[in-house]
Amino acid sequence: MSNPGALKAKIAERGLIRAIAAHSPLSALLAEEAGFDAIWASGFELSALYGLADMSLVTMTQHLDMLRAMAGRVSLPIIADIDTGFGNAINVIHAVREYERAGAAAVVIEDKTFPKVTSLVAGGRQDLVRIEEFEGKIEAAVASRTDPGFLVIARTEALIAGLGEEEALARAAAYEAAGADMILIHSKRQTPEEIESFVRAWRGNAPLVLVPTSYPDLDEKRIRALGRIAVVIYGNHGLRAAVTAMRDAFRRIIADGSAESVSKNIASVEDIFGLQDMDAEKASERRFLK
Amino acid sequence: MSNPGALKAKIAERGLIRAIAAHSPLSALLAEEAGFDAIWASGFELSALYGLADMSLVTMTQHLDMLRAMAGRVSLPIIADIDTGFGNAINVIHAVREYERAGAAAVVIEDKTFPKVTSLVAGGRQDLVRIEEFEGKIEAAVASRTDPGFLVIARTEALIAGLGEEEALARAAAYEAAGADMILIHSKRQTPEEIESFVRAWRGNAPLVLVPTSYPDLDEKRIRALGRIAVVIYGNHGLRAAVTAMRDAFRRIIADGSAESVSKNIASVEDIFGLQDMDAEKASERRFLK
Amino acid sequence: MSNPGALKAKIAERGLIRAIAAHSPLSALLAEEAGFDAIWASGFELSALYGLADMSLVTMTQHLDMLRAMAGRVSLPIIADIDTGFGNAINVIHAVREYERAGAAAVVIEDKTFPKVTSLVAGGRQDLVRIEEFEGKIEAAVASRTDPGFLVIARTEALIAGLGEEEALARAAAYEAAGADMILIHSKRQTPEEIESFVRAWRGNAPLVLVPTSYPDLDEKRIRALGRIAVVIYGNHGLRAAVTAMRDAFRRIIADGSAESVSKNIASVEDIFGLQDMDAEKASERRFLK
Amino acid sequence: MSNPGALKAKIAERGLIRAIAAHSPLSALLAEEAGFDAIWASGFELSALYGLADMSLVTMTQHLDMLRAMAGRVSLPIIADIDTGFGNAINVIHAVREYERAGAAAVVIEDKTFPKVTSLVAGGRQDLVRIEEFEGKIEAAVASRTDPGFLVIARTEALIAGLGEEEALARAAAYEAAGADMILIHSKRQTPEEIESFVRAWRGNAPLVLVPTSYPDLDEKRIRALGRIAVVIYGNHGLRAAVTAMRDAFRRIIADGSAESVSKNIASVEDIFGLQDMDAEKASERRFLK
Repeated sequence: MSNPGALKAKIAERGLIRAIAAHSPLSALLAEEAGFDAIWASGFELSALYGLADMSLVTMTQHLDMLRAMAGRVSLPIIADIDTGFGNAINVIHAVREYERAGAAAVVIEDKTFPKVTSLVAGGRQDLVRIEEFEGKIEAAVASRTDPGFLVIARTEALIAGLGEEEALARAAAYEAAGADMILIHSKRQTPEEIESFVRAWRGNAPLVLVPTSYPDLDEKRIRALGRIAVVIYGNHGLRAAVTAMRDAFRRIIADGSAESVSKNIASVEDIFGLQDMDAEKASERRFLK
Repeated sequence: MSNPGALKAKIAERGLIRAIAAHSPLSALLAEEAGFDAIWASGFELSALYGLADMSLVTMTQHLDMLRAMAGRVSLPIIADIDTGFGNAINVIHAVREYERAGAAAVVIEDKTFPKVTSLVAGGRQDLVRIEEFEGKIEAAVASRTDPGFLVIARTEALIAGLGEEEALARAAAYEAAGADMILIHSKRQTPEEIESFVRAWRGNAPLVLVPTSYPDLDEKRIRALGRIAVVIYGNHGLRAAVTAMRDAFRRIIADGSAESVSKNIASVEDIFGLQDMDAEKASERRFLK
Repeated sequence: MSNPGALKAKIAERGLIRAIAAHSPLSALLAEEAGFDAIWASGFELSALYGLADMSLVTMTQHLDMLRAMAGRVSLPIIADIDTGFGNAINVIHAVREYERAGAAAVVIEDKTFPKVTSLVAGGRQDLVRIEEFEGKIEAAVASRTDPGFLVIARTEALIAGLGEEEALARAAAYEAAGADMILIHSKRQTPEEIESFVRAWRGNAPLVLVPTSYPDLDEKRIRALGRIAVVIYGNHGLRAAVTAMRDAFRRIIADGSAESVSKNIASVEDIFGLQDMDAEKASERRFLK
Repeated sequence: MSNPGALKAKIAERGLIRAIAAHSPLSALLAEEAGFDAIWASGFELSALYGLADMSLVTMTQHLDMLRAMAGRVSLPIIADIDTGFGNAINVIHAVREYERAGAAAVVIEDKTFPKVTSLVAGGRQDLVRIEEFEGKIEAAVASRTDPGFLVIARTEALIAGLGEEEALARAAAYEAAGADMILIHSKRQTPEEIESFVRAWRGNAPLVLVPTSYPDLDEKRIRALGRIAVVIYGNHGLRAAVTAMRDAFRRIIADGSAESVSKNIASVEDIFGLQDMDAEKASERRFLK
């Protein structure tokens, strides 16, 4: 299990760090194996795992349980996607305490109203709370952490709500003043210009976090060139890759009336044993079963 | 949500039905979409999702929670893999009540000692409980269901434990006499001969269940030809396919410093929305948000 | 486990039924033993069990888990206190499906804004949602139940919010028109006059539900005399009695440096075994452990 | 939340410390208020809260969830009653990691076979595992903790199983040699002589833990006089007191057709608010709700 300050330390060491969404210890282990620096405990991926829309249906308990299971299996720092904080500033206080205890290294709180609709749905309602109300939430989060290394990241949906760059910058500045350690800025454009413009215009001290899911041509080289970015989050690619692979495998088994051909193109059972740390378990059996 | 009798009805209608392992509502939805007849709520897949060995570490609560979530999202009947029943006959009684309430259509209980080691690990301890003890567990399960359509499937690991066909047949017959609705027979050979021999020698009335993961050339055509088989379970292919796909995607993102190329080869975000039933949610928003 | 129609049937049979708050299967068993007709799965009591304020901190998962455990141990119908429905109408849809599956016979949804503050706190914010918004929630609840015997009870906090009887009556009528099976009306006065006046003025067809915690002199005799009341809920007496008893016992043990005197005034261990159904378990051991 | 070493430190400071069973954050808060030194997260009390026999039916997940909730609300160190460790040494490894992460300060593991029957039931089966097997469990527990201040307490049921003092002493010595920090010794006699004799005969270095539920005349004065005892656990008095009080209140409400008289003899609603830390919540509302 990672300690709260781990994320901060990694950023200090590497400048830009790469986080990827995980919805389970299994996907978190694969992210660690691939060389990512951090896990994004994504609300969207977990909702999808449950077959539910990302509309505040998955509860904090379900999200905490999965995050805690991840924290027990990987040593990467985990950034918790807590949406709007499950309600108002009082809910944020409770959430921050629980996520810190569960092993998260950071929380991201966004300035939409609760209950939220996913930012990615065309035509979704995207109302933001008043700036003052969200400042209260950030202040509540900061006051509730016990380890100052636990990061509070404020996410503004101002660009997604169509409120423009000026509002986005004003909100980001207000959130930093309220205590946010970093600012996550998001856009629903298919190209990175809107985001790049925001980054260039940003005058605050808080580093920025980007999630270039909709504008993947904003690659790490271009992100480094922009400067000011501490974290790039790859938002939902593991889950989407898994869906494609499971769908193909399932269809092929039905079509073939057999899993024979599918078996040749997927991870072996022994491979899964490796992810389950079966060697360590067998060593423990030899050592402790008497 | 399916009703307990659904599995029985499907078998009566189709002769041989096809179940596939799922570890989440998402994979269950994909199984339903592909045309499977039933879901195998696999202990191995769920353990792997949690990055844990399949050694009775995942609790009944965790398994029930996931099964219940699946039952809320798919209409396929769900066969619950409850390993040894979480202890003795008293634990089986509690488990059967809970699984029936959670929306399962059947449970599979195996005759290994608790805590178990996965059957698939080379050199694992594979001790079986005495026949009488396991008869007691089957009787307890049968006495505890409230709907007679809820099936109790006895799984014998006699072949895997190296006890031979005669012992396997004797156990299967004893378990049927104790009330088991079906018998799951498993082998750790890489070829189907051992299983085929068992099927041909089986004189009981209870239909059989096979899991041809290790001997995938035992395809449905060959299974139908054998006769006596009511259910073929594809044991862990969805999870293995997902691992391969996530691993590839994660490595490529690290290598590319971008998700651009990965994005082209995986399910789109809109595709995931479909699995989350986003259209229904948006219709509900239009209808009920006032 | 009770079926959804059980509550309706009991009301039809008895006119006025008596529900009492429970926070665990144990307290639900004691309520059943005492002769209550129904269980009130109270958010306040469960929050208190967790040592948390009744401010939407306990999650739907935690509440469902406890309700499900109660439904597994008592045959009384359970009325679920789901506060505001955990968000908007979309959250209500999800909640109604989950509570019906968990074994509840009814849900009570209240017209306060989310997140809520307990009605009992002096000076608490008590904002109500617009009537139209709440009608949408009731319509969503009614459309989402699968069994028409599962009751949707609308709770208006209009009197508590200081909006007066006219507003309370208008809201109650609107909620009935939206499909509510019953109306729960609540007051924060220390005397029953405000509630009695509402009951007398009520012209709707929907029966009423009262929670006379703050005005206990509104006893069942007086409630029957009023007419129109289908359910009286005793709101939090079990938990409060337990607190007093545990506090006394704990203090006495500390003071005595021994549990000897305390032991004489509390339920015996054998008594607890009875509530745990130990005789049935021992009979099962004799029958099934071989 | 307490740190793992807290229990050790308290024992060093006070000689004998007093723990009391709690089944919820609420009862843990009352224990803290009364002046106890530690919480006993009792499997018996939690089973009873769920209306279930103490026969390995409540899962590790359920017990961990409640312990974690307690650790979030009280600062007292928590001693986790993990029965036999949920299986073999492999399960113990998993359990120790999870309990330490959840905020426990110690675990007690007992040498009965899994699944266990409560020690308190007359005529219950009380088989013990072989000494070597249990040594393996203790070694596994010790090797799995990350903080050496997290205590591993071995509980021997040798006296309860009727194996005599010599066997009990031999087991205690073996468990200490395997790494146990303390030894819990239990008896089913109604008088303390058997326990006192054991304590006097004990030659090990590990301090002892007693649970004088069945022989409450073994008070703290007598325990101090014996020496060698580090912890006295009051095993189930809170739950038993709560049962008596809830039963009385429920019967009286039914008899009276009113909660009026009951209300006068139980904790006030304001008193419950205090346990819910409502003042802090209201202060947070004033500070952070903007």
